Amino acid sequence: MLDAMGLKDTIACDTRICAIENDALSYAGYDMSELMDNNASFEEVIYLLWNLHLPTQVELNHFEKSLRSEYAISDAVEQCILIQSRKHLHPMSVLRSTVSLLGVYNVHAEENTLEALYDQSIQIMAKVPTIIAAFARLRQGLTPIEPREDLGFAANFLYMLKGQEPSELEVKAFNRALVLHADHELNASTFAARVTASTLADLYSCVTTAIGTLKGSLHGGANERVFDMLLAIRESGDTEAYLQQKLDSKEKIMGFGHRVYKTVDPREKYLKEMAKDLTEGGEDADFFRLSEEVEDFIRNKKGLIPNVDFYSATVYHVLGIDSDIFTLIFAMSRMAGWIAHVQEQKKNNKLIRPRSQYKGLTNLTYIPIGKR
Amino acid sequence: MLDAMGLKDTIACDTRICAIENDALSYAGYDMSELMDNNASFEEVIYLLWNLHLPTQVELNHFEKSLRSEYAISDAVEQCILIQSRKHLHPMSVLRSTVSLLGVYNVHAEENTLEALYDQSIQIMAKVPTIIAAFARLRQGLTPIEPREDLGFAANFLYMLKGQEPSELEVKAFNRALVLHADHELNASTFAARVTASTLADLYSCVTTAIGTLKGSLHGGANERVFDMLLAIRESGDTEAYLQQKLDSKEKIMGFGHRVYKTVDPREKYLKEMAKDLTEGGEDADFFRLSEEVEDFIRNKKGLIPNVDFYSATVYHVLGIDSDIFTLIFAMSRMAGWIAHVQEQKKNNKLIRPRSQYKGLTNLTYIPIGKR
Repeated sequence: MLDAMGLKDTIACDTRICAIENDALSYAGYDMSELMDNNASFEEVIYLLWNLHLPTQVELNHFEKSLRSEYAISDAVEQCILIQSRKHLHPMSVLRSTVSLLGVYNVHAEENTLEALYDQSIQIMAKVPTIIAAFARLRQGLTPIEPREDLGFAANFLYMLKGQEPSELEVKAFNRALVLHADHELNASTFAARVTASTLADLYSCVTTAIGTLKGSLHGGANERVFDMLLAIRESGDTEAYLQQKLDSKEKIMGFGHRVYKTVDPREKYLKEMAKDLTEGGEDADFFRLSEEVEDFIRNKKGLIPNVDFYSATVYHVLGIDSDIFTLIFAMSRMAGWIAHVQEQKKNNKLIRPRSQYKGLTNLTYIPIGKR
Repeated sequence: MLDAMGLKDTIACDTRICAIENDALSYAGYDMSELMDNNASFEEVIYLLWNLHLPTQVELNHFEKSLRSEYAISDAVEQCILIQSRKHLHPMSVLRSTVSLLGVYNVHAEENTLEALYDQSIQIMAKVPTIIAAFARLRQGLTPIEPREDLGFAANFLYMLKGQEPSELEVKAFNRALVLHADHELNASTFAARVTASTLADLYSCVTTAIGTLKGSLHGGANERVFDMLLAIRESGDTEAYLQQKLDSKEKIMGFGHRVYKTVDPREKYLKEMAKDLTEGGEDADFFRLSEEVEDFIRNKKGLIPNVDFYSATVYHVLGIDSDIFTLIFAMSRMAGWIAHVQEQKKNNKLIRPRSQYKGLTNLTYIPIGKR
């Protein structure tokens, strides 16, 4: 058996973007509680991750204007999404291809000054929500809805998805979810994007890498499977029996445990709060109640802690997002962090090129094919 | 300044595919000289990298048949290449998007058994040359040429590129170039593909990652720049003066030195031999002569050794390949290694997730925007 080490606990680079220490998460020095308690907007947080300081009002106005002016996608890109909108296709593959094509179509994609990188960053960040909303509608046979430049990032996305302006509570919740998922240090997709960036590949290549890496089931998709589980539990009518049977057959319960967090996932409590607020008194209150039952049962039986994916399933569902789009929402948010890390890598670059240890046969003699 | 370590000399995983030790390169235990001296075919080498043993005649026949039956691309894929064939687009971006779309269009792309992975491997390996040849022709306004199942990998590609059957010498040289570039341990593109694979993402995601990573100028593209330099030297008429001026202005001379090899790049001598054989007495003999002059000058002045990219520039040029397609040829060959490493990663997987060291400010207080 080969030893697959996974670079566990290996320091691959220094960063100023994000820290995870003692089960706390901070962006550029601001603990998550600072950003949550003060209701920082996702735009502020993107600015923070890219510039390593919070924007002044003038800076934020300028930044929001740049983003909003890039919301729209071209007919060619919309056509590409339409071609890829057959129902059985994997949404993350469609996003991977479409962002890659965004780079093919952008005649400035190959410019590699820091200014060009910033413009490309704005372009990708602004257009990805439009791509996702267009895809979500096209595959249902609906016409895409044009973005509205008078709406912020969170509100505009929900508007493009459903065709009606979201409530204040919905916008607030979705904005918070975007902030919570915006960065997470060297998770696999971010690390992969930095490896791509380290050869001085263009930003579209780096983000395409990140999307493909997030697609894997050990990284993205957990909240989709949490939602499937909640549906199955509701169907079964007996939370404890359902879970006990899963535990007996050694199946993994999705949405629990984390490679980096040991005692608590600092993002989880905010998502739980949102799930509660959004479902209260509504038809989806069941999902919150069932989630709490699952949390208690798994904590007692296995000592496992719910992670960021656990309550986000309910939050996204209540916001009217189909469960097989959940990972695209994750990508839309993490895009902010991916881009921040690519910028940081490129500003202070060294090729990321580790070594492997050879464990196979050696010094073999080539035997002509007739004699093998 | 942040410390960018690049994981230099860090062991990221074990492997049985490839070893670089004491400036020698071997595939699954066979030193490069064994494979070169016995004229191993590229198909044998792909089989070797994927199965860790050389094929018997029966195994090779079966393997070649599988590959050849997958040479053809669908009209939809050809249409996508046509749309991307405007001249100013970056060929590596087109390859990145087209392989990504291959995954969108393959209804079996999401199957994750080892059997499905093998079928996907064959499909990608077989279709990439067809994609590259179609792109090379379409952007010149020429009609793509259908692949020929009666031709082997190297011969079929040259045939699809030029529309006429290549000579025996051309096939032999191109086959050798493909074998020499087929794998190179954990180079950045292969490592990035393994990071993507480690989340259990599908093969199309992994290969898309690798293409995007190879696109960067610190990884791919060196032989294209070597060829540009040879053209400029020929134009200047004075090799030494041209190079001395480059050295005086501290410019990098492409095609020399290597992060891993210190005394010799074991692939270089074979490419030099090929460049000599292919150009002898022909109109391109100049390129070989100039290359030797550059090699001698740089070796004497700087003590640097030519690497794999140096003579491959001349080889590819003589084979009728445009210099801005050189990196696609590299990708076509390295595809064999990328896929081998993805297969190995998936058979014995652990999520590749290193850590970063936080070097920024800490414990900052969120100041309301009006007061910043």
